[in-house]
Amino acid sequence: MTNRQILLVSRPQAEAGVDNFKLVETPVPALADGQVLVRHHYLSLDPYMRMRMSEAKSYAQPQPLNEVMIGGTVGEVVDSKNPGFKPGDTVRGMGGWQEYALVDANQRGVLQKVDAAHIPLSAYLGAVGMPGVTAWYGLVKIIQPKAGQTIVVSAASGAVGSAVGQLAKVRGCRAVGIAGGQEKCRYVTEELGFDACIDYKEHRDEKSLAGALKEAAPDGIDGCFENVGGVVLDAVMSQMNAFGRIALCGMISGYDGQPIPMARPQLILTQRMTLEGFIVSEHMEVWPEALKELGTLVATGTLKYRETVAQGLEQAPEAFLGLLKGRNFGKQLVKLI
Amino acid sequence: MTNRQILLVSRPQAEAGVDNFKLVETPVPALADGQVLVRHHYLSLDPYMRMRMSEAKSYAQPQPLNEVMIGGTVGEVVDSKNPGFKPGDTVRGMGGWQEYALVDANQRGVLQKVDAAHIPLSAYLGAVGMPGVTAWYGLVKIIQPKAGQTIVVSAASGAVGSAVGQLAKVRGCRAVGIAGGQEKCRYVTEELGFDACIDYKEHRDEKSLAGALKEAAPDGIDGCFENVGGVVLDAVMSQMNAFGRIALCGMISGYDGQPIPMARPQLILTQRMTLEGFIVSEHMEVWPEALKELGTLVATGTLKYRETVAQGLEQAPEAFLGLLKGRNFGKQLVKLI
Repeated sequence: MTNRQILLVSRPQAEAGVDNFKLVETPVPALADGQVLVRHHYLSLDPYMRMRMSEAKSYAQPQPLNEVMIGGTVGEVVDSKNPGFKPGDTVRGMGGWQEYALVDANQRGVLQKVDAAHIPLSAYLGAVGMPGVTAWYGLVKIIQPKAGQTIVVSAASGAVGSAVGQLAKVRGCRAVGIAGGQEKCRYVTEELGFDACIDYKEHRDEKSLAGALKEAAPDGIDGCFENVGGVVLDAVMSQMNAFGRIALCGMISGYDGQPIPMARPQLILTQRMTLEGFIVSEHMEVWPEALKELGTLVATGTLKYRETVAQGLEQAPEAFLGLLKGRNFGKQLVKLI
Repeated sequence: MTNRQILLVSRPQAEAGVDNFKLVETPVPALADGQVLVRHHYLSLDPYMRMRMSEAKSYAQPQPLNEVMIGGTVGEVVDSKNPGFKPGDTVRGMGGWQEYALVDANQRGVLQKVDAAHIPLSAYLGAVGMPGVTAWYGLVKIIQPKAGQTIVVSAASGAVGSAVGQLAKVRGCRAVGIAGGQEKCRYVTEELGFDACIDYKEHRDEKSLAGALKEAAPDGIDGCFENVGGVVLDAVMSQMNAFGRIALCGMISGYDGQPIPMARPQLILTQRMTLEGFIVSEHMEVWPEALKELGTLVATGTLKYRETVAQGLEQAPEAFLGLLKGRNFGKQLVKLI
């Protein structure tokens, strides 16, 4: 049986490109004791992968060259020499950019069975997966919103951002999104139920964006879930209320290595703000509580999400580069079957 | 009886100057019921006053023009129509830049009796006053140091910074100071007991300062008490460990209005840092606990401090401008008797 895989073969100098990746075919090895063979149905594409492509100091080891790109996956067990799993089980794991993964399933947490009867399998890579828990942690544990407060989230139509705003609404907050383009903004307000959404493409400089935020958040901003950085963060900071809290989840505007200075850090002092950077994989203790809420909200149709699905492993690099440019709409997936 | 007062008569355009202040003489009015007349022995000069001189958005109302400059004071009650105070009582208050203050002492907290028998009166404006509690709050409540960690503090020979490092040492930390000039650095290490002190005048750019920090903090920096901002903060951030915590107490490098961007805010994310701005007057609940520790440490000679004392109210403006330039050594006071 042949597996197809995508390797990282070089590191981007500035922008990432398709040349950084290479598609290869390899035979699937025979199973050893304890191992499980998973056929991937979906591969998750996420902004954090861009950071792993570089060697710069970061929270994680860089993705090694000439190995399968890391990534979250959902799929079905097709063979098992592990008593915990049997063919037909639907599972989530970190299978990487490949069609099959051979998993040492004895290692705790490396492969989790998921219920595909009440929640679509792909949602375990989005609203009921890492992006959803990321949203939950940043909002609930860092921003700690109170009813009546105003919460701003950038990349609001994305997998993380869309969940942040909807979880804020559940908590009685005013949710203001920032997204790229009228169509995304319409989706954020009309389908996801945010109170307002600002099209950053119409507000390219800080002053213009700050003006739009002032209008969308007339009582000021109490919490911000930040995925973008740069001008967006500067504009948000200019409108923050005293004791405002900022969860720093991503700074996609700087992923290609360009400088993204914070213009006025003195606002942290004058407004007594708290800023906290986090990565959700370091807070495994919250996953059960977060997934319980997220799963219930998705199963009941309260938490909505959208997916952009590329078809076929060979499309993964282009789809990933599109994600970095904001060409996706909602959670970016690659369908592998 | 004649009182001498210093008023703020204009706001600085960039650097503050002596012309922003004016010395006036006024008669001391007769006491009304509930009032106390205090003769000031010492006036405290502190960096926060610079921020109050401007109208820029800040945590506090700007100092009104043509009124007595605000400021902490210690002195002696010379007349009282308030049953809580009698002539001879030593007190601390916010009497402002003047020789006498008429205080409505019924308002809770506006005038506190202090014990001048075991602790010098002037210390209630420094190590056992607002600067000491500022150090205590930022270190204990925001940085939350653990034994063995490395704590960096800028403006380390100052009233706040010197207490931060000594409180960190009491908690089993490695204390690294940043100060201006060899004499101050020698004082910080030899007299205050810091483990190291970096002379920022010998490291004017970020790279050089980062190199010096790397040497002084070979295991990286776990906590930072920041009084300066700008290049100093950038250099500290470059050496922060994962989960590092930064208490933002002041950004004196930007007080004259020049931009002080933070060069690489993405480090907050990649190192999962927490930054928190604070002003100590909003955390009155910690004052009793903080003052208890600080008072004990000062009375036992464990917590050391130095004072620079200008003589006479008329010297206050020059002494204050010198403080902003780092010309003081330790707590800057004006002696009024």
